[in-house]
This record gives sequence, structure tokens and C-alpha cells, in this order.
Amino acid sequence: MKVVITGGQGFLGRRLADAILARGTLTGISGKAEPVDAIVLFDAVAPEQRPAGLDERVAIVSGDIADRDTVSALVDRDDLSLFHLASVVSGGGEKDFDLAMRVNLDGARHVLEAMRSGGGRRRLVFTSSIAVFGGPWLPASVGDDTKQLPQTTYGITKTIGELLVNDYSRKGFLDGRSARLPTVIIRPGKPNAAASGFSSGVFREPLNGIDYVLPVGLDTVMPVLGYRAVVDGMIALHELSGQALGPDRAVGLPALTVTVGDMVDALHRVAGRRRLGAIAVEPDPFIEAICRGWPADSHFQRALELGLPREDSLDTIVAYYIDDYLG
Amino acid sequence: MKVVITGGQGFLGRRLADAILARGTLTGISGKAEPVDAIVLFDAVAPEQRPAGLDERVAIVSGDIADRDTVSALVDRDDLSLFHLASVVSGGGEKDFDLAMRVNLDGARHVLEAMRSGGGRRRLVFTSSIAVFGGPWLPASVGDDTKQLPQTTYGITKTIGELLVNDYSRKGFLDGRSARLPTVIIRPGKPNAAASGFSSGVFREPLNGIDYVLPVGLDTVMPVLGYRAVVDGMIALHELSGQALGPDRAVGLPALTVTVGDMVDALHRVAGRRRLGAIAVEPDPFIEAICRGWPADSHFQRALELGLPREDSLDTIVAYYIDDYLG
Repeated sequence: MKVVITGGQGFLGRRLADAILARGTLTGISGKAEPVDAIVLFDAVAPEQRPAGLDERVAIVSGDIADRDTVSALVDRDDLSLFHLASVVSGGGEKDFDLAMRVNLDGARHVLEAMRSGGGRRRLVFTSSIAVFGGPWLPASVGDDTKQLPQTTYGITKTIGELLVNDYSRKGFLDGRSARLPTVIIRPGKPNAAASGFSSGVFREPLNGIDYVLPVGLDTVMPVLGYRAVVDGMIALHELSGQALGPDRAVGLPALTVTVGDMVDALHRVAGRRRLGAIAVEPDPFIEAICRGWPADSHFQRALELGLPREDSLDTIVAYYIDDYLG
Repeated sequence: MKVVITGGQGFLGRRLADAILARGTLTGISGKAEPVDAIVLFDAVAPEQRPAGLDERVAIVSGDIADRDTVSALVDRDDLSLFHLASVVSGGGEKDFDLAMRVNLDGARHVLEAMRSGGGRRRLVFTSSIAVFGGPWLPASVGDDTKQLPQTTYGITKTIGELLVNDYSRKGFLDGRSARLPTVIIRPGKPNAAASGFSSGVFREPLNGIDYVLPVGLDTVMPVLGYRAVVDGMIALHELSGQALGPDRAVGLPALTVTVGDMVDALHRVAGRRRLGAIAVEPDPFIEAICRGWPADSHFQRALELGLPREDSLDTIVAYYIDDYLG
């Protein structure tokens, strides 16, 4: 079978491809494990050169997710699964509403239409976000039973994606499911402009020997999940039967609810013998205001019952990052 | 100012136009009452002849709500409000998914885009539905705080409409609000194929001297609202300031939670001296199954605090219908 990953050049897309290649099989349209003989990493821009050592089963395709024909051409086999990760992110959506609507809403509709047919057996995993929750009546803890009142265009488009995945699945057009991600840590590479960037930066920069200034207080609380559990969770969600998911195909992934202080403590527990950059706190009112709008806690009994994983602690997440990126 | 009503040839659209003409003014982009000098009734099909006696301020326009340019041309003034009623209904959406997506989703997006600009002061009233609620975790009573897990394409598109109205309002593109309607009774005219049709038929047909067979048991429970309160509620919602509504612009209208037996009793209390058709009960498993998926009860404290109306009883609703349609 073939696997298409949109947003395939992103951090999670690349890790997902590696994980699928390592497994070798996924549940196909037969309902049984089938060998994965081709993976397409689709993204807006292709790397200038094919990365060295990339598995020969992997093809790199670039194009505009908001172009119907481009997306339609990606789904060229019946025995195909698609992981839809391509998205304008939260800050980007606030800056450019029309781009978020094009990429996130039109793009998702093109993906759904492309996957339609094939007897409704093709599996689709849509990546949603805890940003679907917001607004003045946000409960202390959010979960699959919480009203979605997103306060960003990003969150709006993710909620719409979940709704459409539910309806395309209910109608038998495809076999969809949505993974609702909490904040994913620890992102490698350079700092980005995301308001949540500190939750990766507070680990990554000190581990690189660079001093780091936290823009929020140590008592800031948030649900987080390590990238390994996120990727494993997306694959586990793909493998579950539609019947196991029922009419709400959107599942909030399990998470760890931690404070920023917990993050600093975990870093020092796991990597205290390394030469770490220093961490200071200089609250940024702009970032702090955004953080106050986020859910502080989440519940995920359904995800646990479905067997979706989470790391057992922040310490494990830090240890995985050191293994994966610092050798 | 000008008022555009999409779905303007429907029962509610026509009554809404009459109610606005009777008022004479609406709150305009100035934030103050402005005389309504033009109303456009937009619908898919125009009547063959202009109805006799129609107020000269009313123009009838026909076209495809799913055509962007057609919708854009409707919004030809800054001082304009729009009531968006045009929609494929529940049963129609289940039969023709693509039509529901075109009319309800693409149509709503065209309306939102057409209303965008004008300094964000143009008011939009979007008609949503209690069909936004559904699924296996439906609570005993639904309200503005309830997770929306619709189980029809109609309900999906109405939920998406609410989300987009919230976001266009949050971004300052327009000043939107959504009226979430329960089952509206008593619809005049001929019986239609709607599964909820019995809630109007059980009054209308006996009042016309015609025997009526109820497809559901007398203990069937549902939230209903009379058409007068629905129209008054849409206008009241239009008149409220955006600040009063806050970030969730979708308000469930107040309703009366009644059994079908209550409906029969009210009919006989109010119209017992008339020659009424007989009422029999012959449960239809298909209709009963659909009804079991609907919310049995609703709560609407927010709507009451905002001053939105409901009739005080079924008796009042029956009396209004007799006044309005039976002379």
C-alpha cells in the first residue's frame, strides 16, 4: 500500500514517515496489515536536494494543498492511506486569515474529496489541535466532551476539519479519524515564532549550551506530549477500526499536564551533568496573555481506553530528545 | 438602510420581511435605528408573478446562493443587514451531500465574504439549528455550552456556519450572530417530507378539518418554538450589540419542551369548538428512530438574559396560528 503525508517536510511529517518505514506495514483497505511500498512526502516546498540516505520508497512531491487537482493527483491508488498534517499554524492564521482558510479549510476539503470513493475503506488521519478549545466558558479541563469555541482562525479551521472528517466517515466516503494534539515538545531546530515555542525552547536551547529567557512564569500550566508519543498516537489511531471510534472520530491524544517549572526541573534532573545554558524568566505580557487563553488541563479517558500512548514523564521526553538529536 | 433576506421566499423569510416592514427600522451600521427603505427577498426560485399587494420596498431576486458573484452582487450598499436563511434542510442534506455542501457551506462562505468590509459594522443574522447537537453522548438537555457533534450533513454545515460567523466577527470583518432554532411550529401550507413535519401537521391538518395520523407516540418529547417568537427572536438578535453577545455569537433561542400529547391537548383546549379532523397514532419506526436522535430538552438562560422571546404556551402558538392563517 501507499502512504501520503501532507506537511511531509515538517518535523512531525518526517518522523511519521520514519516510523512507518520502521514498522513496514499499516492496516490497509483489506482491514489487514499490508506492506508499505511507497510513501509520498507532500509539502508546499521541496528540499533543494533529496536528503542523503532517504529510503528509496519515499518520494518527495511539492505543490499547493489549496489546489484541487494537485491534491487529487496524490490519491492515485485504491490501497492508500493519508495523514493530513499540512496546515497554517496558529500565529500564521492570525496574521493571514485568507491563507488559513485556503490552506486549512479548502486544503482539507480537497483532501477529503480526493480520498472519497474507494468503497469508503481508505483511511485518513487528520491532525487537529487543542486550539479547538477556547473562549470565556473554557472549563478547567478540556476533552472529547467539551464544547469547541476556538478563538483563533487556526482553531476554527481545525474544528471544521474534525466535523468534516466525522461526516465523510458517517457517509461512508472514507474511514477518517482526527488526532487532537496538545502542545508537542521538544521541537528540534531553530526557535520559531509560535507563542508556545518556549515549551520546546526551554529544553532545546539550554541543551545546546545557549542561555534561554522564558517569556512566561514558572507557574504556567499546559498539557504537552512528546513527539514520539504523538507520532505513535497518530499511527495507533490509523490502526484502530472505525467501529472502535464510533461517530466522533476526533480523539484528544493523552497528555501530561505540567508547569513550566516542571519542565525546568526535568531538564536539570535528566541533563544536569551536561553544560546547560542558563534559564531566566522575563514574562512577556503578549505571550502570557495568549497562554492564559489556552486550556490549562485536559482529560483523555477515551484515548487511553483506545490504547493511545503518552510518555510516562517529562524526564522520558527529555531523554528521548537527547537520544534522538544530541547523540 | 437595506435588508437582504436569503431564503426570502420561504415561510420564515416572508414573515421576517413583513415583521421588518411593520417595524420600519432596524439598527444600522451607525449603531442607531435607521429606516428600512429596501428589502431584497433572495431565493433559488422567484414566484412566477410578483405577489399582489407586496410592499413596494420589497424586491424579489432569484439566483444560486452557491455562486459567489451572485451573492456578492446582493451586498451593494454599506448600510445593509443580511438575514441568511437559505439552506438545504435536514432530509435534503442526507439525500444529496454535495448539494448541502454547495448550498449550506459554500453559500454561507459567499455570504460572509460578501458582507466582509464596510468597517465590520454590517450585521449578519445566520439561522442555525438545534440539529447541531447529536451523537451518542447527547446530554438530557442541550444549550450554548453543549459540545456540537451533529449526525447529519445539515447539522455539520450549520455548526460550521456558526464557527465562521464567530470568526468573521472576531476578526472585525462583520458583526455577525447566529440564531439556533428549535423545531418551528406551526408551518402553514402543505405537509412536507421533514421528519419533524408532524409537529406542525398535528395542528394544521385537524384545524383544516383533515384527519391526521401521527407517526410518533404521544410521549415523544421535543423543544419547539412558534414562528412569531422565531421571527421576533431573529430581529431581537439583530438589534443586540456585538458586545452583549461576546465571543460566542451563536445563541440557542428559547423554546418550549413539550410532548406530542401536550400538542394534541393544546389543540383541543384552544380550538375544541371547531370542527377538527381526528388524530390517530400509528408509529413509523423510521420517523421514531430519527426523533430519538434529537435533543429531548434544551436550556437557554443566556437567550433569556439577552431578552429573546418565546411564547408562554402551546395554547398561545395555536391561537396565533388561527389568527394568522384561519382568520
